[in-house]
Amino acid sequence: MNFAIGVDLGGTNLRIAAVGEKGELLEKVTTGTRLALGRDAVIGEMVTAIGELVRKHSGAHRLLGVGIGVPGIIDKRTGMLRQSPNLPGWDDYPVRDEIERRLGAPVVLENDANCAALGEAWLGVARHAENMCMITLGTGVGGGIVLNGRIWQGMTGMAGEVGHIIVFPDGPQCGCGSHGCVEQFASATAIVRMAREAIAGGHAPALTKASVEGDAEFSAKVVYSLAMQGDKAAREIFRKVGQALGLLLADVINALNLEMYVIGGGVSNAWDAFAPAMFEELLRRSFVYAATAPEDVCAAIAEGASAAVRPLESGPRTVITRALLGSDAGLFGAARLPVDSPRRHGGTEEPIIE
Amino acid sequence: MNFAIGVDLGGTNLRIAAVGEKGELLEKVTTGTRLALGRDAVIGEMVTAIGELVRKHSGAHRLLGVGIGVPGIIDKRTGMLRQSPNLPGWDDYPVRDEIERRLGAPVVLENDANCAALGEAWLGVARHAENMCMITLGTGVGGGIVLNGRIWQGMTGMAGEVGHIIVFPDGPQCGCGSHGCVEQFASATAIVRMAREAIAGGHAPALTKASVEGDAEFSAKVVYSLAMQGDKAAREIFRKVGQALGLLLADVINALNLEMYVIGGGVSNAWDAFAPAMFEELLRRSFVYAATAPEDVCAAIAEGASAAVRPLESGPRTVITRALLGSDAGLFGAARLPVDSPRRHGGTEEPIIE
Repeated sequence: MNFAIGVDLGGTNLRIAAVGEKGELLEKVTTGTRLALGRDAVIGEMVTAIGELVRKHSGAHRLLGVGIGVPGIIDKRTGMLRQSPNLPGWDDYPVRDEIERRLGAPVVLENDANCAALGEAWLGVARHAENMCMITLGTGVGGGIVLNGRIWQGMTGMAGEVGHIIVFPDGPQCGCGSHGCVEQFASATAIVRMAREAIAGGHAPALTKASVEGDAEFSAKVVYSLAMQGDKAAREIFRKVGQALGLLLADVINALNLEMYVIGGGVSNAWDAFAPAMFEELLRRSFVYAATAPEDVCAAIAEGASAAVRPLESGPRTVITRALLGSDAGLFGAARLPVDSPRRHGGTEEPIIE
Repeated sequence: MNFAIGVDLGGTNLRIAAVGEKGELLEKVTTGTRLALGRDAVIGEMVTAIGELVRKHSGAHRLLGVGIGVPGIIDKRTGMLRQSPNLPGWDDYPVRDEIERRLGAPVVLENDANCAALGEAWLGVARHAENMCMITLGTGVGGGIVLNGRIWQGMTGMAGEVGHIIVFPDGPQCGCGSHGCVEQFASATAIVRMAREAIAGGHAPALTKASVEGDAEFSAKVVYSLAMQGDKAAREIFRKVGQALGLLLADVINALNLEMYVIGGGVSNAWDAFAPAMFEELLRRSFVYAATAPEDVCAAIAEGASAAVRPLESGPRTVITRALLGSDAGLFGAARLPVDSPRRHGGTEEPIIE
């Protein structure tokens, strides 16, 4: 069979998988991303690890290519990583060409959030949906839109940045330059900031007692635990997370009317804490959702939650759900890239095998 | 040649055109929509007028079908008009089937704002853009998204409702059930509301003196005239219009990264009054726009307006521009519908000719 290599290059972990063209996992390797060694060394380790996997599996299988998911803004035309807060020193680095040169195999570069969307659309919870949007709640909020089974790239490959849709225009400044983006309310970093604000406000004794220092995702878990124990201040924080996500979903649903919206990333484990506020906000905010919500949600509408538009009597329903593949989504999505569009090497018709 | 009939069924005017499949205008007819006579009479007049045009041109040409743009929410599967504030009494009316039955020809029904987008994408300012979004500023704010040259319908045909993207979540209630939609800040109705608020606030002598009663589009023109004469209160209103449009564009650009965004409708004639605030807001709000803005805008960024993301050195630029076709956009777009997808009649391969 044909196979592809998928790479998930994160600021902390470097994960590489060999995946068959029908989604069969052949092998998965995880190592740390040793950023301190510099980008040349990281690329070198990556190329070595990819080479080993390729050699191991290309006896029985044919390599279609290598897909690499990277955090940050990519220029799809040139294969350059333009800006990446999680990979300091990599700005304007020709990642694709450098790896291609060292590896001698075709490489497709993609934003990590787009890879996660493609992974869930290919093999995850959205595998029966042709059109979906994935929202990844991590230290930031990533997004990816899949239309007709393919990542919607946009004109310059920058589409899908739904984490920077503005939900509260007077909100805190975002790394993107705007204020009040979803990322400022629904990321682990935002949860920790809101916890600190609550502590500073003096009305959050349990949060004050708990530690919300250090790693954002860990600290967000602490806030989540308190919320699930009924702590008022912690619950209020997740209500804000849900509100922001409800506003984001309302905007995307009104604009695109897709079949499925998938929420993943570490913070999505706090679903129980933010989902009620998210659905409540969304119902009030999007008449397209109100018209196409699942029956149990329609019942809530009938009880008066929202009634500007009556639900359709029949027809497909808008599904909003948690992701299925966890951190493997991005890895599988990256492996899908060369399956969808194997880059030809040296002008030959056939994809190269190292 | 092949031709199609396009119909723009508005709350005030009924406009019908015979259009060649390459966009050649064969004939255009405009009459009033006599809503007071009831929907059966309006449909009857429409069918009669369509029939006359068809008979007149089907000697020399072959009819592909009839496309009808209607204001309101359509269920694309059933061809029903579900809700339409501008066509009172038409809710849940099987518009498509009724016209098809009386006319004996295949009919495609579409939302009027989607038709306007398709018209501009086919023959207007976006005729060289494969991917675009049109925003129509009228008594409400309509939207339509064209991807790969076709209207993006979404799951149930409700996509493109960018007029209901939420820009100020605590803003005035909207007819859609939400609060603070773009429509509440950038429609003629909203301009009149803001003028009345300014008058009530007691700090708008010129607006108080001028008449802002009656027809919304006329009154919005009065406010526009005052703004262009330098009246502070009127200028402030159009600054808000521009801000709201800038926020809307930021959301859509970050999500979709399209080639072109077209602003049409009656209020777009006030471009000079709202565009500066719109571009200023957009630049601060969307890093995808900041990276892809035209060179003159990039120059403004370099001067410090926004710098979270550096502009791409080369590559395609995001274009934001006024519409070209005026009220004909919807008419041409409606005529394009049967060209794109002639509905087959009675299971035959060929489109029917009456």
